[in-house]
Amino acid sequence: MPKVTAHLSISLDGFVAGPHQTREEPLGVGGEELHRWHIGAPTNDVDKAMTERILAPRGAYVMGRNMYAPDRGDWGAEMWRGWWGDDPPYHCPVFVLTHYPADPIEMEGGTTFHFVTGFDEAMERAFEAAGEDTVTIAGGASAVRQGFEAGVIDEIMLNHAPVVLGSGESPFAGLTDLRLTPIEVHASPLATHVVYSTRS
Amino acid sequence: MPKVTAHLSISLDGFVAGPHQTREEPLGVGGEELHRWHIGAPTNDVDKAMTERILAPRGAYVMGRNMYAPDRGDWGAEMWRGWWGDDPPYHCPVFVLTHYPADPIEMEGGTTFHFVTGFDEAMERAFEAAGEDTVTIAGGASAVRQGFEAGVIDEIMLNHAPVVLGSGESPFAGLTDLRLTPIEVHASPLATHVVYSTRS
Repeated sequence: MPKVTAHLSISLDGFVAGPHQTREEPLGVGGEELHRWHIGAPTNDVDKAMTERILAPRGAYVMGRNMYAPDRGDWGAEMWRGWWGDDPPYHCPVFVLTHYPADPIEMEGGTTFHFVTGFDEAMERAFEAAGEDTVTIAGGASAVRQGFEAGVIDEIMLNHAPVVLGSGESPFAGLTDLRLTPIEVHASPLATHVVYSTRS
Repeated sequence: MPKVTAHLSISLDGFVAGPHQTREEPLGVGGEELHRWHIGAPTNDVDKAMTERILAPRGAYVMGRNMYAPDRGDWGAEMWRGWWGDDPPYHCPVFVLTHYPADPIEMEGGTTFHFVTGFDEAMERAFEAAGEDTVTIAGGASAVRQGFEAGVIDEIMLNHAPVVLGSGESPFAGLTDLRLTPIEVHASPLATHVVYSTRS
């Protein structure tokens, strides 16, 4: 089995997006502050190295609907093609979790968005597409939480941002017996980057 | 003004104690796991050094009632003398926040518990007692939260334990605009120790 990873920028109170997500503010109120360490261009070597790791090639991604698109419910007349322009930074198959089936969308640069109606099926198809390469759960909170619940995540990098959001989306909601082991720590003034193993 | 610090062991979802605190389980369900890095005796050099820092001499402490005692409400017939035996690890005046005044309790080793009915008054008396030495808010969640709200905390060490508690006591509840700067990071397999400044 290939390795399954995830990564999330997270507040000190455990939120990966603020409340009131909208098309104008897709990360919710205050959510952008979680990403100060890499938004625009990272300004120090640690944040640069972590950004490169996140952008490194993968075999496939699994992504939640709420990360893929601003709207909820049916896809509507004009199919949303993601937040990332014509050439998204994934460069491999991305399996988007949704209750609403849709045809795949082939983007530039090797990214194809596939729309899949269940977490297990998405993981299965991601494994198949990835071969020996790493499968990464790209987020958001709910997709990563489903990964923990299914026990498929081997490693997660949490980019702990030194901010408090007060409320928002938690990848841990409903999980009470999650015990991780930090295996790498890289510190910058904007985030403490910790890679946790779920296996050791 | 002397420096004001605080330190809290905290879960990945931002809780410093689990739910259902009782006399038998003062840290709530799962709460003891936050303290694995120093409970008993610390087992590695980083955790040892952090434990020593926490135990270093202070000028005075401010402590919440819920950290001091298992019960709530009136003190009852027999006054509670803390969780820490005859010689508590504070060795200086400790100002306990409570709605119920009580006479001071002099313990062995220089610790005296004073009972004070307001956060501002507790800080004032702690400053007076501490002179030039550091004042530390010992916890729990509510006392530290009041410290943030009052803007008196200069530095907080969060010992990030790699566990998820699901619910419990949060020092950040109700705070939405707290922005910190990590100024030190020390990693062990049991916790990622980060000292944050509120000033820079």
